[in-house]
Amino acid sequence: MCSLPVPREPLRRVAVTGGTHGNEMSGVYLARHWLRDPSELQRPSFSAMPVLANPEATAACRRYVGRDLNRTFTSTFLTARATPDDPYEVTRARELNQLLGPKASGRAFDFVLDLHNTTANMGSCLIAEAAHNIFAMHMCHHLQLQSPELPCRVFLYQLPGVETYSVDSVAKNGMALELGPQPQGVLRADIFLRMRALVAAALDFIELFNQGTAFPAFEMEAYRTLGAVDFPRTDDGGLAGFVHPQLQDQDFQPLRPGAPIFQMFSGEDVLYEGDSTVYPVFINEAAYYEKGTAFFQTEKLTFSVPALPALASASTPTP
Amino acid sequence: MCSLPVPREPLRRVAVTGGTHGNEMSGVYLARHWLRDPSELQRPSFSAMPVLANPEATAACRRYVGRDLNRTFTSTFLTARATPDDPYEVTRARELNQLLGPKASGRAFDFVLDLHNTTANMGSCLIAEAAHNIFAMHMCHHLQLQSPELPCRVFLYQLPGVETYSVDSVAKNGMALELGPQPQGVLRADIFLRMRALVAAALDFIELFNQGTAFPAFEMEAYRTLGAVDFPRTDDGGLAGFVHPQLQDQDFQPLRPGAPIFQMFSGEDVLYEGDSTVYPVFINEAAYYEKGTAFFQTEKLTFSVPALPALASASTPTP
Repeated sequence: MCSLPVPREPLRRVAVTGGTHGNEMSGVYLARHWLRDPSELQRPSFSAMPVLANPEATAACRRYVGRDLNRTFTSTFLTARATPDDPYEVTRARELNQLLGPKASGRAFDFVLDLHNTTANMGSCLIAEAAHNIFAMHMCHHLQLQSPELPCRVFLYQLPGVETYSVDSVAKNGMALELGPQPQGVLRADIFLRMRALVAAALDFIELFNQGTAFPAFEMEAYRTLGAVDFPRTDDGGLAGFVHPQLQDQDFQPLRPGAPIFQMFSGEDVLYEGDSTVYPVFINEAAYYEKGTAFFQTEKLTFSVPALPALASASTPTP
Repeated sequence: MCSLPVPREPLRRVAVTGGTHGNEMSGVYLARHWLRDPSELQRPSFSAMPVLANPEATAACRRYVGRDLNRTFTSTFLTARATPDDPYEVTRARELNQLLGPKASGRAFDFVLDLHNTTANMGSCLIAEAAHNIFAMHMCHHLQLQSPELPCRVFLYQLPGVETYSVDSVAKNGMALELGPQPQGVLRADIFLRMRALVAAALDFIELFNQGTAFPAFEMEAYRTLGAVDFPRTDDGGLAGFVHPQLQDQDFQPLRPGAPIFQMFSGEDVLYEGDSTVYPVFINEAAYYEKGTAFFQTEKLTFSVPALPALASASTPTP
């Protein structure tokens, strides 16, 4: 397996970004709270910087105002010459790239943790690009061990050959938290408190690493994207049906060939015609209607993650 | 009790409106489906007309584009001279008033049933102005009897001395269905199928009435609004806390003095300081953040609804 290099120095420059999508309220309100009082983000060896990633979309309580910010951190957008006609999020992506990157440079932040909500019944989900990100996989494992009674699944979204495009991809390393179900524009106590605890555990993991902790190898279970499935459509492109009651809320559960996936407005069922079991995620996510996605199919993988060695010269807190 | 006059003629002109709020998807997609195939809305004595109430907001998947359409059917908006600067929904309210009204005129539709969703855990809720609407109370009672295993609560929203403002208020009689929890921008099978069944039962009730059925008096339980409660706020008007985990999802349940209603971002609880038990509804509704409403307090009432007499000359279907 081709692995990303593991950090050889303590992680000093860490950011926690919320409101990358302006109507995902856990991250919006955590970022706003930490901007007023960042004490919760302090650790002995570093202090994470809170960032409200998309202030205009947050003010409008919309996912975005021009285009989806979390799809805008590609070289196409980051390196093109700025024009007055650029959508707000293209300008903002360049600002964030200056603040947290530049992407793929030695000056980039060491880690960005980006906070998201979904309307789907995903529970707590950790989103990383790919399994070769050893440091992120160890962080995921650490978070899973903190609350063994609460599933905390790992979703690997990167397809081979596709450039990374998310806000955390501008840093040397990063990951997203995706918590649901929570409606857009709503701040639910249960989701908020869970996200706050996961962020704290992620920062604790970085602190342990900075202090010289070594983490042994382990077996990881994760869900890797295979592709998106659209709703049934009418001739004019409108919906002709909806997610089947038997599929709704069944994120991360096995979907077997022949099981119903949609129900048409006329009443008939649409069945899953694939020839192998898949694991749907982001089922009926509000933001994906416009992207033509009723859910993503994933495959469930188990793979070995190598040990994360201790730093040669560990950081020691100054008194 | 001052009662609205009960109909003396069969109800011939009935409309079912969806998408009054453009991101409440059950009504949006029911209206779109019925506009393609209205057969489901036919009864022997009448045929209900489907209406997509706010096409621009529906296209944008937003509650509204200019102002909240369902607060715009007052004489202030309906009778003022049109100007090019009118928000879209003011123009649309006048169009709907021409189509379904004019409000308070003999030419108005006999009944308008308006379809809504909420992100709150309201289950199936019937929203009428006041208990003196005998015909609507009988329809509510009929709907409750159809599925006794599923609560179907009645919410009376009208405060004394306040002019009616909702889309159904332009008809001679009307009511809203409010189903949740459903995120904005999401079409959930369970909510969709329940709404479709409730609309069918409401039309069946009108058909029974048109055919000469008399309905006996009964006792009705309902929740009457007392007023709105805002979130705790920071000095600059932002949220300082969120709905308490113990209150979230507890719509229509008793809230007793001293019980927690909010939790501050700093961790402390805010307690309900009223001196009598109330019944919160629309708890943590996404659309009400901007209205400064975390929930509505209601009181629970029981009252007598008089019999609905049979029509003197009942309608008979033509073959």
